[in-house]
Amino acid sequence: MNDLPVVNIGICGLGTVGQGVWKHVTRSRAKLEARLGAKLRLTRASVRDLTKKRQVRVGASRLTTDPMEVATDPKIQIVCELIGGTTVAKAVTLAALRMGKTVVSANKALVCEHGPEIFAEARKHGGHYFFEAAVAGGIPIIKAIREGLVANRFDRIYGILNGTCNYILTRMERERLTYGEILKEAKARGYAEADESLDVDGWDTAHKASIIAYLAHGTWVPTQAMGVEGITRITQVDMHYAREHDLAIKLLAVIERDFKTDELSVVVAPMLLPRTKVLANVNEVFNGVSVTGDVVGETIYIGRGAGQDATASAVISDIVDGVTLLVRGNAALPEPVEHHCPPRPPEHSTNRYYLRLDVKDEPGVLSKIAAATARFKVSIASVQQTQSTRAAAATLMLTTHLTNEKAIRSAVAQLRRLAGVLGTPQLLRIASFED
Amino acid sequence: MNDLPVVNIGICGLGTVGQGVWKHVTRSRAKLEARLGAKLRLTRASVRDLTKKRQVRVGASRLTTDPMEVATDPKIQIVCELIGGTTVAKAVTLAALRMGKTVVSANKALVCEHGPEIFAEARKHGGHYFFEAAVAGGIPIIKAIREGLVANRFDRIYGILNGTCNYILTRMERERLTYGEILKEAKARGYAEADESLDVDGWDTAHKASIIAYLAHGTWVPTQAMGVEGITRITQVDMHYAREHDLAIKLLAVIERDFKTDELSVVVAPMLLPRTKVLANVNEVFNGVSVTGDVVGETIYIGRGAGQDATASAVISDIVDGVTLLVRGNAALPEPVEHHCPPRPPEHSTNRYYLRLDVKDEPGVLSKIAAATARFKVSIASVQQTQSTRAAAATLMLTTHLTNEKAIRSAVAQLRRLAGVLGTPQLLRIASFED
Repeated sequence: MNDLPVVNIGICGLGTVGQGVWKHVTRSRAKLEARLGAKLRLTRASVRDLTKKRQVRVGASRLTTDPMEVATDPKIQIVCELIGGTTVAKAVTLAALRMGKTVVSANKALVCEHGPEIFAEARKHGGHYFFEAAVAGGIPIIKAIREGLVANRFDRIYGILNGTCNYILTRMERERLTYGEILKEAKARGYAEADESLDVDGWDTAHKASIIAYLAHGTWVPTQAMGVEGITRITQVDMHYAREHDLAIKLLAVIERDFKTDELSVVVAPMLLPRTKVLANVNEVFNGVSVTGDVVGETIYIGRGAGQDATASAVISDIVDGVTLLVRGNAALPEPVEHHCPPRPPEHSTNRYYLRLDVKDEPGVLSKIAAATARFKVSIASVQQTQSTRAAAATLMLTTHLTNEKAIRSAVAQLRRLAGVLGTPQLLRIASFED
Repeated sequence: MNDLPVVNIGICGLGTVGQGVWKHVTRSRAKLEARLGAKLRLTRASVRDLTKKRQVRVGASRLTTDPMEVATDPKIQIVCELIGGTTVAKAVTLAALRMGKTVVSANKALVCEHGPEIFAEARKHGGHYFFEAAVAGGIPIIKAIREGLVANRFDRIYGILNGTCNYILTRMERERLTYGEILKEAKARGYAEADESLDVDGWDTAHKASIIAYLAHGTWVPTQAMGVEGITRITQVDMHYAREHDLAIKLLAVIERDFKTDELSVVVAPMLLPRTKVLANVNEVFNGVSVTGDVVGETIYIGRGAGQDATASAVISDIVDGVTLLVRGNAALPEPVEHHCPPRPPEHSTNRYYLRLDVKDEPGVLSKIAAATARFKVSIASVQQTQSTRAAAATLMLTTHLTNEKAIRSAVAQLRRLAGVLGTPQLLRIASFED
């Protein structure tokens, strides 16, 4: 056993996830070492505050306040970047990669915003960059797309990628409280950040969708180029409709590629999903991803998308892959082939839609609405009317047959200008995924 | 491009799966070669009948009737064993491994029955043996357990691993036809084999459970040492009860390890599963696996468990892993550490149970039954009575509180001897997985 090679691991950022990694590597050390034929040493860690009390015991000599010291320590072969953000984290990552090291990261924003530069640096110096923990926490979805489903082209991938949003939507559905009431409680319980906007406005989901789209298609789609909508505008009226029609409302990232036109579409928005779909039943803080490949058909992956332990599980799996490469030969993982897919224009995106409007309760309004939608060739599948919370008004809930995004947006713009329509119409996609 | 290394692939057994692999490797060749930095050549294939018409065009010069010729061809580096069975398939596998080759297999029976010998031979000669396609078809479950979740100990893994059984149970649930009627139709549609016993009696599921148990725990549990029950005894009475109580009946493989006693339990049996569980909603020919790790929590994997394309998807992912190792260095995958877990004795296995009895419709029967169960400390949670199809008889459906396997089996044996009990009682576990 003493002849085994030693792999030194450094942790930049001993926060929640970093402590989880430290804890579980320590606990599973014997098993991991036996599997790998190598000794694992947690050599150093960087922290912001040396005096802070931590869950794990780390000797003072192994701590530093300078993450760059960890990243560039010549003894350390594997650097875990668990700092977050895109400034210090980026500098630390690039410094380690320039020394030919392997970097393991849980940082979706960094991968999403600076992926090409980081990957190029890893390639150039013969190192590796792993980021399983950046998407869907403990679910090995990156490995599945990159390795397990390598025989496939991916027509459609859709997923619930943000635990905070899914928790809020699940509770709104079950308890009929408002968005604001649940958000407040989620914050108190630590299920939502103090500044929740990155989560509830859809940007965290968009970061993850960008990474998945790159792995599946070799094209980087910046989040600004996606349609990104959050969950803040979902009300109990929508929830009630969904319940009545056996639908769930989920914040979905939908990545679709049309292999005839080569167009790629990445959308993040709350959508109605039939209860018969497995993902409609993925609740609370769980994430779920449906991956449809041309060879394998649909495969689905579900698990905790965040939290200390789930994220640590993914980080450790990357550490193990890194150690395998180090001690057993330097095989590189097959990388996505860079490829430029043009974005899919809205007139090529077709969906069924749910449209909710508050209208004046007077004769002729429905016919005006029908005329406005018909003008844009939007065909109505169903109409339901309930009383509005506004005085002398009714709420109409319409669903459409398959229609394209450009047409429905134009129709909604037109509807907003109609005299009988009050406030802003609610437009949601119905994600039946059956076309 | 001409300087790229060439990897020669041979296919032993150009049946349904073999042709799927040939077809999809041919179709995706350019993408795979770009990813791998290697040229892939489908060099030779063995068939039973040279004159048979096939889905894929393979030049006559590349076909042989002798799989051993393919396995030992010195040009061929990767051999796909897609013959099935455990005689010729085993000889071909060992011959290829003895030459240091990589063997890719979809053969669960072979892995299950001769895994240790095959793995030892691969290690000895520096080759590799991959078998992602042997379990749950296109779902990359082996990669998930072996690599993606490597940081975890697995307290519980349960899965629907046989598409034929799941198809039959799904149709019984939806259409209220008998087992026999559905089986007949499934055979006509090609969803069940002419000899269905390997599937419906649970042995195919048991083979797959044995492989999963080994990967997760390093212990080989022979199928004879498991409790294996099939689905043939499930009736519409059970289905009706399940429906009424928001349960589904699924043929589950349940692999549980008690890390306090180190005991390992592998059971294959039809079980009642609450509809709230994702796996209760995995229907038709789909497979699903729930993997609970001590670090990551529960993760779930769903996809097609069989069929030409899903299986080919898994085989090709193994080929790609094999090629990666060949051309980019010879890193071995981390292997499970061999470990002997003692089997869990029935008195340590606790479950809630569903027990259905036909009884004479006369006073005193229920009290006799209650006394018999009480004698073995089996505590009844609910009792429901309906009319039996037998004359002058009633059907009792009981559920129990948590009780151990030994106690319930003893109680049932006792019940069978009671004068008022008619026929054979139906005993099913209620797999709530909440303890």
